[in-house]
Amino acid sequence: MPISEFAIIQRFFTRQTVKNPSTRLSIGDDCALLSLPEGYELAVSTDTMVENVHFFAGTNPEQLGHKLLAVNLSDLASMGAKPVSVMLALTLPDVDENWLTAFAKGFLSLAERYSVDLIGGDTTSGPLTLTVQAMGLVPRGNALMRSSALLGDFIYVTGMLGDAGLGLKIIQGYHCANPDSALQRFNKPDPRVDAGLALTGIANACIDISDGLAGDLGHILEQSNVGACLDWDALPLSGPVLDYINDSGDWSMPLTAGDDYELCFTVSPEKALQLTFDCRKIGVIEAMPGLRLLRSGAIQTLKSKGYEHFS
Amino acid sequence: MPISEFAIIQRFFTRQTVKNPSTRLSIGDDCALLSLPEGYELAVSTDTMVENVHFFAGTNPEQLGHKLLAVNLSDLASMGAKPVSVMLALTLPDVDENWLTAFAKGFLSLAERYSVDLIGGDTTSGPLTLTVQAMGLVPRGNALMRSSALLGDFIYVTGMLGDAGLGLKIIQGYHCANPDSALQRFNKPDPRVDAGLALTGIANACIDISDGLAGDLGHILEQSNVGACLDWDALPLSGPVLDYINDSGDWSMPLTAGDDYELCFTVSPEKALQLTFDCRKIGVIEAMPGLRLLRSGAIQTLKSKGYEHFS
Repeated sequence: MPISEFAIIQRFFTRQTVKNPSTRLSIGDDCALLSLPEGYELAVSTDTMVENVHFFAGTNPEQLGHKLLAVNLSDLASMGAKPVSVMLALTLPDVDENWLTAFAKGFLSLAERYSVDLIGGDTTSGPLTLTVQAMGLVPRGNALMRSSALLGDFIYVTGMLGDAGLGLKIIQGYHCANPDSALQRFNKPDPRVDAGLALTGIANACIDISDGLAGDLGHILEQSNVGACLDWDALPLSGPVLDYINDSGDWSMPLTAGDDYELCFTVSPEKALQLTFDCRKIGVIEAMPGLRLLRSGAIQTLKSKGYEHFS
Repeated sequence: MPISEFAIIQRFFTRQTVKNPSTRLSIGDDCALLSLPEGYELAVSTDTMVENVHFFAGTNPEQLGHKLLAVNLSDLASMGAKPVSVMLALTLPDVDENWLTAFAKGFLSLAERYSVDLIGGDTTSGPLTLTVQAMGLVPRGNALMRSSALLGDFIYVTGMLGDAGLGLKIIQGYHCANPDSALQRFNKPDPRVDAGLALTGIANACIDISDGLAGDLGHILEQSNVGACLDWDALPLSGPVLDYINDSGDWSMPLTAGDDYELCFTVSPEKALQLTFDCRKIGVIEAMPGLRLLRSGAIQTLKSKGYEHFS
């Protein structure tokens, strides 16, 4: 590479000042140092994005920087953790200064919004591969797990389902009369950090929807040893997604398409009254294992990536 | 990929039982959860290894798994931190079960040795790229920084210099009569975890030698606003490295070759008496900026990757 690893970090990624009292030492030594306030635990998650696998070659680098951080903050949100810091491991085919400037802008703008410190990382030469490790704080014992959904819990989601999936279809050539919100949701998702924080002490189980509602809710069901039934008519679907379903007949898309980065969570009926932010009740936790859907008067069994008629 | 991301983690990487009381939640949810004992900080570091950049295609996967973790534990060692947990982000061109089994064996064997928990990660499809984030504990205020070397400090290194560099040359075709120790040092370095722990409260500054002694000590000097003079005759050089220098005339190799993963640290003359483990005094911290070498009765200025005569 024409400029050194150290110079890349210095030049493109250190303009941010330290925001978090947890950050005791940031970029510049062999390790960063974090302290935790008393009574808190650290939630830690990592996600990698690979060119031509998770994003198309030529993707707008500012959107890419935003999305890379967003998908990692989404994991923290799903545990109810407040994001504090991230590490960034960049593997780059070359040092393209315009690309790096735009990528850093997208990444650091979102970091600033949530007062997240970029505390370290690594830059290496190779095929474009981006890995973030995100760290957040959660009061001890308050983290939202996949494994603690209870019989009778109501199932909720934030936001709308399937818009990101529609955005991907638009990029792949599907014609949509109003493409902007779907494209925005695919290219530049907003992690539901505030919703996650609001859910600690209220929700029993939570997950973020990265691989499609059916599959991700399926993880909650499996790890909690319960089942669920969803109500098709209650699903929050945007106008463009409903149009897509009418056009294509592909009604299952909002249940199986990835990249929504909304939260899916379960709450006891009593605590449901305490939900203060915008979210939609879409179903109920049941004793019988498996995921079912009530649609057009019939109950169908849903698999993560397909559908079987129930009987 | 023929088997899912979740199945890869389950099958190859979860045989390890949780070892650390800091690990409150391991693999299986959106985040892992860590707690810190009172009075401790978390040291965090990340390092990526890319095929054909950091290792040759076809490298023994068991050695590769070991080395990937070793280089990350080495960063913790250089801060004086006790390793507790790691995240593993694997980008794989395909799912080769034999490769994964051997890689996991090398990685987890070293993890077991230091009671390090693998608490999470991500597996993605793409060109072979391996990223680890390592986390360790250090008593608050006791971390060994690059920036705190003091005038008059003695400079020490653990182990020998240049053996890994010689190992690389052997792999590239150099004939060596006794290649085993050099190859071992290149392929399967031992991170100096115990030395790092022993240095807290004794050393003023510390770094691990990943890019060659001259460059890495240079970081200490720059960040501490001091200079140093090394004594060539004091450098710990193995028989095969001395033979290589005699053969090739390339005497600077042990100062500039990477991959040693030894620790270089500075200690006040008074505290030097407290050093209880095997290490070698190789020089002294001086006021004049820059790195110098006393060799054959003359003092030369060293640059990270080359040499200038001093006068």
